[in-house]
Amino acid sequence: MDKVNLSEKFALFTDHWSPKIVGELNGQYVKLAKFKGEFVWHKHDNEDEMFLVVDGILKIEFRDKTVTLNKDEFIIVPKGTEHRPIAENEVLVMLFEPATTLNTGDVTNELTQYQLDKL
Amino acid sequence: MDKVNLSEKFALFTDHWSPKIVGELNGQYVKLAKFKGEFVWHKHDNEDEMFLVVDGILKIEFRDKTVTLNKDEFIIVPKGTEHRPIAENEVLVMLFEPATTLNTGDVTNELTQYQLDKL
Repeated sequence: MDKVNLSEKFALFTDHWSPKIVGELNGQYVKLAKFKGEFVWHKHDNEDEMFLVVDGILKIEFRDKTVTLNKDEFIIVPKGTEHRPIAENEVLVMLFEPATTLNTGDVTNELTQYQLDKL
Repeated sequence: MDKVNLSEKFALFTDHWSPKIVGELNGQYVKLAKFKGEFVWHKHDNEDEMFLVVDGILKIEFRDKTVTLNKDEFIIVPKGTEHRPIAENEVLVMLFEPATTLNTGDVTNELTQYQLDKL
């Protein structure tokens, strides 16, 4: 049981849209990711998903609105809700979601990450 | 579905050792708390618990070691693990844990919070 320093973990990778597992509790994963550019529209049929911005600015498009998250702001996207993350510049994000969550939800394409690294 | 700004939520309360619910996902609560002083030794028999330090310094005593968490560091305390949070000065903490988690775990005393406010 060791502590995790977010900055140290973020320094270990540079790839975008590829969440890394940094913790697990109660069947949920804590993940860190770097986003840059536009992701794909998708939803998670069975999992709520939390995005906490650690640094930068993250926009999340929903079908009826766009939410802009700054540092130290989070949003919980309920299961079944279509969304698309957009990062004009690189943004550092902490994700909190069930271990079963696939990053692209109900869509599979070249962005889909079937196996996540643990840092 | 709205975003949550951590600073705005922390500004809404001043009491210590009294976690506030600021989000819920997949049966887990996201809570914010201000700690100051020494808490009680306790454990959670069925729930892992995550402490993320948003500001300040948090020490967590375990029976075999003490871990010091600075800003942007977290630790996951596995179920069944005795621990005692200590904050020499006020520390702002984000907690992730199942909705069923009682703050004092297997101990009940004057610090026990049976009903949590939602902010």
